[in-house]
Amino acid sequence: MSFTQQVLARLAQRGLALPAQMPKPAGVYEAYRLQDGLGFLAAQVPGYGPGSLPGRVGHELTADQGRAAAAMAALNALGRLAEALDGLDRLQGLLHVAGHVASADMFWDQPEVLDGASELFNFALAERGRHTRTAFAVPRLPKNLSVELEISFSYAPA
Amino acid sequence: MSFTQQVLARLAQRGLALPAQMPKPAGVYEAYRLQDGLGFLAAQVPGYGPGSLPGRVGHELTADQGRAAAAMAALNALGRLAEALDGLDRLQGLLHVAGHVASADMFWDQPEVLDGASELFNFALAERGRHTRTAFAVPRLPKNLSVELEISFSYAPA
Amino acid sequence: MSFTQQVLARLAQRGLALPAQMPKPAGVYEAYRLQDGLGFLAAQVPGYGPGSLPGRVGHELTADQGRAAAAMAALNALGRLAEALDGLDRLQGLLHVAGHVASADMFWDQPEVLDGASELFNFALAERGRHTRTAFAVPRLPKNLSVELEISFSYAPA
Repeated sequence: MSFTQQVLARLAQRGLALPAQMPKPAGVYEAYRLQDGLGFLAAQVPGYGPGSLPGRVGHELTADQGRAAAAMAALNALGRLAEALDGLDRLQGLLHVAGHVASADMFWDQPEVLDGASELFNFALAERGRHTRTAFAVPRLPKNLSVELEISFSYAPA
Repeated sequence: MSFTQQVLARLAQRGLALPAQMPKPAGVYEAYRLQDGLGFLAAQVPGYGPGSLPGRVGHELTADQGRAAAAMAALNALGRLAEALDGLDRLQGLLHVAGHVASADMFWDQPEVLDGASELFNFALAERGRHTRTAFAVPRLPKNLSVELEISFSYAPA
Repeated sequence: MSFTQQVLARLAQRGLALPAQMPKPAGVYEAYRLQDGLGFLAAQVPGYGPGSLPGRVGHELTADQGRAAAAMAALNALGRLAEALDGLDRLQGLLHVAGHVASADMFWDQPEVLDGASELFNFALAERGRHTRTAFAVPRLPKNLSVELEISFSYAPA
């Protein structure tokens, strides 16, 4: 079973699948960049639709909803990685994830919210999901998003 | 015509040139770092003078002014790249651009503001300007700047 | 004298030492990641204890206290680097430092605060401490931290 198939099988255990369509870039930039084994994804978000949990955690959203939004962003990231690398077999590993959480002023549990994303990466990608992380609280995110992830990764050149 | 000359010619079409002088680092750090083909620029900003469009988009500044500030920061970035690489011939390509926009609370169109920078990169550098991007809304930036760009790039070692 | 010993000797001149214990990751992520010569640290912070100067610069904290908090985060970063690389001999150099400072609304001197970290890196690591930097003002940081550093570096594979 290829690594891609293993990831799909793990996602299926939770009733999840790689998204058929990912949120489009919000401007004139690329969805991903690959250069000499080092890759970058553009902002990964839960989505722009009404079911995408917009707003601020601790205000319009609970911490659990924020965590769910973070997991949605992570699932979209897996979809982009599979698109960028034509499957996930060439993914060597995530590197760094910077997570920004739109937050009410006195809500300080951004790490717990972002664990929704980290936990999905660790579960779906196993060893290859290991990453460092920084967490940030922002009053607002573009387009009233609740969570935005900045992700770098390592891949095996074809 | 070298790649550097091509970039200069494209900028000239818009009445632009590489800045003779770029905003200085605001502290005890380097303006750029080059390591094994991977490069980083310190914060790229529109400038610190009175003509540098300080303030918050959606408050002191309109979205169009924010977009102009983002383009000014991008032009300064081109100047730094040319300084770091002794011209732009060795630039292989931009990698990731993180754009922070000082914003009024309910102003959520940071992607449109940052397109002012992305569009200039794409225009001036063509294929080598392609980049992924993350956009952030912040209530304030250091020194009351309106836009700040964090940029990584790939270059051919000499 | 090895490079590690040189760093320890410089720190000792100021009555400092590498921390015996660093703040633990705040979630399900790694403290560091090493890949093909490029390294990342998870968020570096002054600490989570009562002596770790929580709060906002310009509000609960003075600029000088913010600067001290930034230096504490930098010292923790040195500890993590030494852990990741089994000493500092294999550190080729810091690359980029993104510094986020929890700030009162009209406090705009984040660069001066972050110089507390940059100055320690330059002092302790000399040439290998050189880095680019971006500075950000945020209303709050997770867990009410005052300073958070995001750090990448280059190292010699073993």
